[in-house]
Amino acid sequence: MLESFTLAPGFRAAATACGLKTSSAMAASSLDLALVTAEAPCSAAGLFTSNRVKAAPVLYDQETLAQNAGAIRAVITNAGNANAVTGEQGLADARQMAALTAYGLRCQPDQVLVLSTGVIGRPMAMDKVTQGIAVVTSPAAEQGAAVAARAIMTTDTRPKTAMGSATIGSAQVTVSGFCKGAGMIHPDMATMLAIVTTDAQVAPDVLHSALKAAADVSFNRISVDGDTSTNDTLLLLASGVSGVAIGAGSAEFAQFVALLSEICTSLAKQVARDGEGATRLIEIVVSGAEDVAQAHTVANTIAISPLLKTAVHGGDPNWGRVLMAAGRSGAAIDPNRLTLAFGPPEREIIVLRDGMPASYVEREAAALFREDPVFIRLDLGLGSAQTTVWTCDFSKEYVEINAHYTT
Amino acid sequence: MLESFTLAPGFRAAATACGLKTSSAMAASSLDLALVTAEAPCSAAGLFTSNRVKAAPVLYDQETLAQNAGAIRAVITNAGNANAVTGEQGLADARQMAALTAYGLRCQPDQVLVLSTGVIGRPMAMDKVTQGIAVVTSPAAEQGAAVAARAIMTTDTRPKTAMGSATIGSAQVTVSGFCKGAGMIHPDMATMLAIVTTDAQVAPDVLHSALKAAADVSFNRISVDGDTSTNDTLLLLASGVSGVAIGAGSAEFAQFVALLSEICTSLAKQVARDGEGATRLIEIVVSGAEDVAQAHTVANTIAISPLLKTAVHGGDPNWGRVLMAAGRSGAAIDPNRLTLAFGPPEREIIVLRDGMPASYVEREAAALFREDPVFIRLDLGLGSAQTTVWTCDFSKEYVEINAHYTT
Repeated sequence: MLESFTLAPGFRAAATACGLKTSSAMAASSLDLALVTAEAPCSAAGLFTSNRVKAAPVLYDQETLAQNAGAIRAVITNAGNANAVTGEQGLADARQMAALTAYGLRCQPDQVLVLSTGVIGRPMAMDKVTQGIAVVTSPAAEQGAAVAARAIMTTDTRPKTAMGSATIGSAQVTVSGFCKGAGMIHPDMATMLAIVTTDAQVAPDVLHSALKAAADVSFNRISVDGDTSTNDTLLLLASGVSGVAIGAGSAEFAQFVALLSEICTSLAKQVARDGEGATRLIEIVVSGAEDVAQAHTVANTIAISPLLKTAVHGGDPNWGRVLMAAGRSGAAIDPNRLTLAFGPPEREIIVLRDGMPASYVEREAAALFREDPVFIRLDLGLGSAQTTVWTCDFSKEYVEINAHYTT
Repeated sequence: MLESFTLAPGFRAAATACGLKTSSAMAASSLDLALVTAEAPCSAAGLFTSNRVKAAPVLYDQETLAQNAGAIRAVITNAGNANAVTGEQGLADARQMAALTAYGLRCQPDQVLVLSTGVIGRPMAMDKVTQGIAVVTSPAAEQGAAVAARAIMTTDTRPKTAMGSATIGSAQVTVSGFCKGAGMIHPDMATMLAIVTTDAQVAPDVLHSALKAAADVSFNRISVDGDTSTNDTLLLLASGVSGVAIGAGSAEFAQFVALLSEICTSLAKQVARDGEGATRLIEIVVSGAEDVAQAHTVANTIAISPLLKTAVHGGDPNWGRVLMAAGRSGAAIDPNRLTLAFGPPEREIIVLRDGMPASYVEREAAALFREDPVFIRLDLGLGSAQTTVWTCDFSKEYVEINAHYTT
């Protein structure tokens, strides 16, 4: 499956190892440098972390996209060092990574975007990076999107890829992307790094609107540990080689957003399922809300509750913790209107109806808490808005991974 | 030490076991019913959970204090069942617990406050409770504040008590209390259950002001897991037997608040240190803030970060995670003005100065992260306000405890 993974027409990928992954927690792959190239200058859009402490590549990419979103040629990504809290030198290093990549690809530095993930507060080992970029921009690099998806992993246990096509207008449009996640995962942004490509023909501002719409139903709906990284970045590149033009507000735009949302949702769910130490995906649906914002407030508070996440890990259908989280969310819920069900809709078990414990077989509810995914569906009984968020269970391995990340 | 623990003059305590603690996670003591009695009707004040889903005893106590805060005779507390999300029957059960206690003590039901802690959403085993209250109100019960402090424990590993005295006005005033914590610990309220007694003579409204002021610098400054219980309650009872009257706004009031704050801070820190699975206390000081609210926002976000808490657990001085948490807190910090130190002031190691990594010996910083308590001091460089919060590290045992709480 993974080996057949490709980017959208008009894009290629390669990867190499240059020795940046020093922690045993990141040893799943020694590949640590990934390059995505567009065969010709392409449209690009990006969404970035809301954290006030932004890594150097985030600042660099924001500046670059503001000036040159219509003519991007490449994205260079390293794993192992986040290049965050590294001051002026960090910003200079991010610029240098772009310049080195541009040199290898024979394009301009402001046509290159830079992504970094890994440890915060360490200077980039630019000797290694320099050598790595020389390799990854040459035929000597390992080729293919599958290896690039592996190279950007840190504590991820598996690569995360998604691709899909749809007929839009007169022709087929492809959207294909890969991402990495694992820790510090929380809206907004929910992913640490994601690169999505398409062969649709889309102007940068329209591309940005489409990306924002897709992220709102995907990457901004997942949580691993409530923490938001300094580096979170979601990039979308559009080559246009399909010949299908996507105009703002057109029927094609809606179709494109739908396809893009599907791919982004697939990637986001892969991130949630592969949260650090996670063993299962948890899908939380909050319905009957007064509005979507209220549904989100409740769903997110449930999704970040360590008590709920550990209960799922233990297969303990401790629904009191769902109520506790909903109650502390700040949303104006009415405890007497809450109805809570576990399990997929077709064989749900209602554990609470209109605020009162329902009668059910504890053993059967516990069985639903040991499935993957685990479904938690809370109806607030106040209105008709609803939302879905995804998270993962919370295991001892999360602690193990994070107690010894830098050492 | 614990065996010599007593309540303030004018109060007595007793405890018994009636079989409510069914989970192995709560097996530290089989005692599960505690009674605090005032020798004569006393003043009382209470602070309660901000969770929208409030347990039955919380609703009952709020109603009782609104009507009868000047003539309280007793507090009956059970551990093992939270009597939360139990509907009308739960409220009837809380009232019945008060009535049974009043019967045993020969006072009125509205002179009795009720506290419950334990599993959510299970009906109270009122047969056991009825028998237990008959025992605990009789001479057959185990006597003393030390046994009462043990009886209210759930996943606590040790009882939490504090007492102190000061000369206020013409005579000595004593404040003495005990509490239980462990999980679902987060402002406001931070403790699950606390009962504090004093022999000062204070009217209920003044007592409430004093309690609020003390809680703001103690119980509302601790976090174990970011979750807020349905049952959190802090009660303060004043017997008046010292003869020292505390008037609103008086010099005595200030002295009383200082003494009360000292006792509440001691109890709160004991709760943080004994967080579920915790091995060490973490003291987080945020200074240089524009105002206290900003300092709190940053300090609380650091205190609830699972990434930071696991790093402390592993003795990994991963200061990037402190920055990450500060950055995502929502406070308008400036990354270039941050200065971060680890360790107690007299032998601190500065790891970040004005936003740039400082030079220090990693091994020495790691050693500070293995001490107890661990000190984390972040200066925002924006103003002169500061605050302190306490939390604990995050271990595999937290997961173990919470994965199998009800089963």
